Amino acid sequence: MIELQGRSLIGAQTGTASGAEFHALNPATGERLQPAFRCATQQEVDAAANLAEQAFSSFASSSGQTRAALLRRIATGLEGIADQLAERMPQETGLPEARARGELGRTCLQLRLFADLAEQGHWVDARIDRADPQRQPLPKPDLRSMWQPLGPVVVFGASNFPLAFSVAGGDTAAALAAGCPVIVKAHSAHPGVSELVGRVVQAAVQAEGLPEGVFSLIFGDGSTVGSALVKHPHVKAVGFTGSYSGGKALMDIAAARPQPIPVYAEMGSLNPMVMLPGALDTQTEALAKGLAASVTMGTGQFCTCPSVILAIDSPALDRFLTTLEAALSDIQPGVMLNPGIARAYHAGIRIQGAQQGIDARLSETGEGCKARPALMVTDAAHWCGQPLLRDEVFGPSTLVIRCPDQASLLDAVSALEGQLTATLHATESELANWPELVQSLRRKSGRLLFGGFPTGVEVSHAMVHGGPFPASSDGRSTSVGTMAIHRFARPVCYQNFPAALLPTALQDGNPLKLWRLIDGQLSQQ
Amino acid sequence: MIELQGRSLIGAQTGTASGAEFHALNPATGERLQPAFRCATQQEVDAAANLAEQAFSSFASSSGQTRAALLRRIATGLEGIADQLAERMPQETGLPEARARGELGRTCLQLRLFADLAEQGHWVDARIDRADPQRQPLPKPDLRSMWQPLGPVVVFGASNFPLAFSVAGGDTAAALAAGCPVIVKAHSAHPGVSELVGRVVQAAVQAEGLPEGVFSLIFGDGSTVGSALVKHPHVKAVGFTGSYSGGKALMDIAAARPQPIPVYAEMGSLNPMVMLPGALDTQTEALAKGLAASVTMGTGQFCTCPSVILAIDSPALDRFLTTLEAALSDIQPGVMLNPGIARAYHAGIRIQGAQQGIDARLSETGEGCKARPALMVTDAAHWCGQPLLRDEVFGPSTLVIRCPDQASLLDAVSALEGQLTATLHATESELANWPELVQSLRRKSGRLLFGGFPTGVEVSHAMVHGGPFPASSDGRSTSVGTMAIHRFARPVCYQNFPAALLPTALQDGNPLKLWRLIDGQLSQQ
Repeated sequence: MIELQGRSLIGAQTGTASGAEFHALNPATGERLQPAFRCATQQEVDAAANLAEQAFSSFASSSGQTRAALLRRIATGLEGIADQLAERMPQETGLPEARARGELGRTCLQLRLFADLAEQGHWVDARIDRADPQRQPLPKPDLRSMWQPLGPVVVFGASNFPLAFSVAGGDTAAALAAGCPVIVKAHSAHPGVSELVGRVVQAAVQAEGLPEGVFSLIFGDGSTVGSALVKHPHVKAVGFTGSYSGGKALMDIAAARPQPIPVYAEMGSLNPMVMLPGALDTQTEALAKGLAASVTMGTGQFCTCPSVILAIDSPALDRFLTTLEAALSDIQPGVMLNPGIARAYHAGIRIQGAQQGIDARLSETGEGCKARPALMVTDAAHWCGQPLLRDEVFGPSTLVIRCPDQASLLDAVSALEGQLTATLHATESELANWPELVQSLRRKSGRLLFGGFPTGVEVSHAMVHGGPFPASSDGRSTSVGTMAIHRFARPVCYQNFPAALLPTALQDGNPLKLWRLIDGQLSQQ
Repeated sequence: MIELQGRSLIGAQTGTASGAEFHALNPATGERLQPAFRCATQQEVDAAANLAEQAFSSFASSSGQTRAALLRRIATGLEGIADQLAERMPQETGLPEARARGELGRTCLQLRLFADLAEQGHWVDARIDRADPQRQPLPKPDLRSMWQPLGPVVVFGASNFPLAFSVAGGDTAAALAAGCPVIVKAHSAHPGVSELVGRVVQAAVQAEGLPEGVFSLIFGDGSTVGSALVKHPHVKAVGFTGSYSGGKALMDIAAARPQPIPVYAEMGSLNPMVMLPGALDTQTEALAKGLAASVTMGTGQFCTCPSVILAIDSPALDRFLTTLEAALSDIQPGVMLNPGIARAYHAGIRIQGAQQGIDARLSETGEGCKARPALMVTDAAHWCGQPLLRDEVFGPSTLVIRCPDQASLLDAVSALEGQLTATLHATESELANWPELVQSLRRKSGRLLFGGFPTGVEVSHAMVHGGPFPASSDGRSTSVGTMAIHRFARPVCYQNFPAALLPTALQDGNPLKLWRLIDGQLSQQ
């Protein structure tokens, strides 16, 4: 049982009580939760960054086994406080206990997946181009390259995934696996869960005999502490999951630094779902019910919530809407994560419902932190003409776009900005006959689904959870799955280096048994 | 024999003569070269971007064989006009004919290397995580991902590599191999060479039956046309090689777009060379002479010119300086690429020579486009204290930093910003005993050399020609070698997609015989 202290964790130390005080709030009851938490001071931010910088060289040259051991110890440690997390997380977020336990499982799975990745080591993409001293007109040098860690990384905890995208979430796991020290800015809505997880990570760093600066946890309410972290010269990359305004602000701060650094911000998405007649006509009921469940999962607070549905007008679409409206009406109001998110949801639906051409089927979303699902219907012309309709309303709502024909559906798709996901409900032959639709959605999204619903993001090797701006700051990257490790690394090339000075991954004899590209040919020799 | 027309190439069309007129200048003679060239108008910029956008879908889904055939045809076409290029390039750049022929060879080698890469297809990093419908609590979906092209790319021609980093240079080859249409902004100092190469690319696109928008060449003097291209909403990435101020301006424009896009700007470097006593004492003469040759190669106009030398004070360093000064004095003045670059070189050396603590051994650089080598000497304290000394002076100059001891040498290294290269001259045991030095240089550079000189950048699989800012805008990338293809692509994931709708690279049975990651295991099955 960990007793909460309400202070930042600066390496192995506990922060001071000199910063401003804030409390977590139970969104279900309005109750102020104990203890009080203290915002980190600028001195504490500097101390964490300095410790991370000091830790970098040795952690960067640690073995994959060392990093794997750290990640596995964190996972085991979190499982050891599962009951405490399952108690505190619902208090701070309104999410049910089952969700807390499920998300813990996912978090530990992520940590162990990155442990395996670090241990196996293939991710470094080792390449060797052998020398040819006889080459004319100039000798060919020996060149060897591999991906190496960037430096200290700042990770922002997400409000909607207090475990899987927060203190020991995907970005932290990826950064530690890559060999980067991590400074987490805790989300101020769930500081208790953040401290619990942070203390487990802190203890794991110590138990593995690693430099304390490998991990710090910083509390702050508002944006001051977060900006100070992103501006810090020792920080070399940023991971963020949250709102567009929050993510864009970090992108701008990072781009304005004397030395700009990469920001990986996952900023949400409308997750368009396109239903063609071949699927809609035959699965009307199932699609409507499945959609109602997907839209309201986690009270709509997933970045993969399907918020826009595009379909060609038809009697089946009318039946679909009737069933969807009924299914959404039947769903009990959910508790949103915090008052700010709930306020934004109620206001967003009010604004969306007041737009011209909107048929507000369900728009009484309730008040306070309780939220009912919303359902809006419009047509392709209004959708294309009103950019405001394309703003994400974070919560359990969806907007159905009636399209008179194929051409207007393609126009409606063209109006979409970058997306995390796009889902197609259609027959194979419908899509084969309409390649422009698939091509258009592919250009706009990180993940394309055939059937099903976008909620539920598998943690695996092939997953891409990212997408063109504004879904994320950098569509070339993913925040879920093993490809994420390359966020926090860059290739470094060694020319004519003596064997003894080369990183192990690049040495002759391949002591780590890596897959390596030797003169352009993959080989495990 | 191609007759120069002095117009932009907008897809298959030749641009209008309505824009402002400019001429190339022979830097050796001051002669204005014919014909006159016309800047593209905003309408022509729009037309090129629209054609590129129209070409994208079909080019993006073309096979690796198709792209390889295009790249090889461009290489063959360039070899077919070798004599014309070898005549025009020296006129426009002051570079000797042998350099033109050598650079043409390198350019064709790059094109063919990317042709092989596209044809083999492994670069797409195909991944398949197989479904498990029985998994509890939820079925596991079928997930397949691969890298796919970003969209139209703008490439800026470089002044110092009229062939290898210009119209059909590395970025163009990488973008075409990835499946991205390319719009090149020609460098206004060598428009004739640019048109010659552009006409070959234009003809190759046509001969391969590809949409005309796959390639356009845009002329413009000053920054107006370049900014218009980077701001264009159809453009999805930018490649640039040139000055810090030029690259940073493009980074800022791209970051301020409604949809920010990646800019890969290679902005030069000091290319520090560290000489430890074990090497300096025994190879004094050879190091001095080798350095003189490296500094003055191409009249110092390589981004890998070694401009800063760090060494511990010793009698050997004095002998090294004496030999270096004599060797540099013996080198005949070279013709710089254009009057702007020459002016900046003369001014840069004047400013550097006037700084406190600078011993200006050679500072009479001449005037006009002719330039003599410069040699400056200072000590670690002045180097660390004066940021101005760390500005790159583009041209045949080098600055030697005398360091009283190891600690001050490490301080001098710490003062360095990001670099393309760092070169170590030392014995193995010296470096083994001083891991901080190698670590510090590794964090700051894209390529680390043991011995030798950084000029000469091999085009291969393991090469990294990039480095932390300000050497490049994005240290996670390279502008030379096959890794560069990922600049212009992003991963896309397909969930539960029917076989017939999957890209060939992701289909069961592996029709392209790619190396793929199947459930986390590399396999060619």
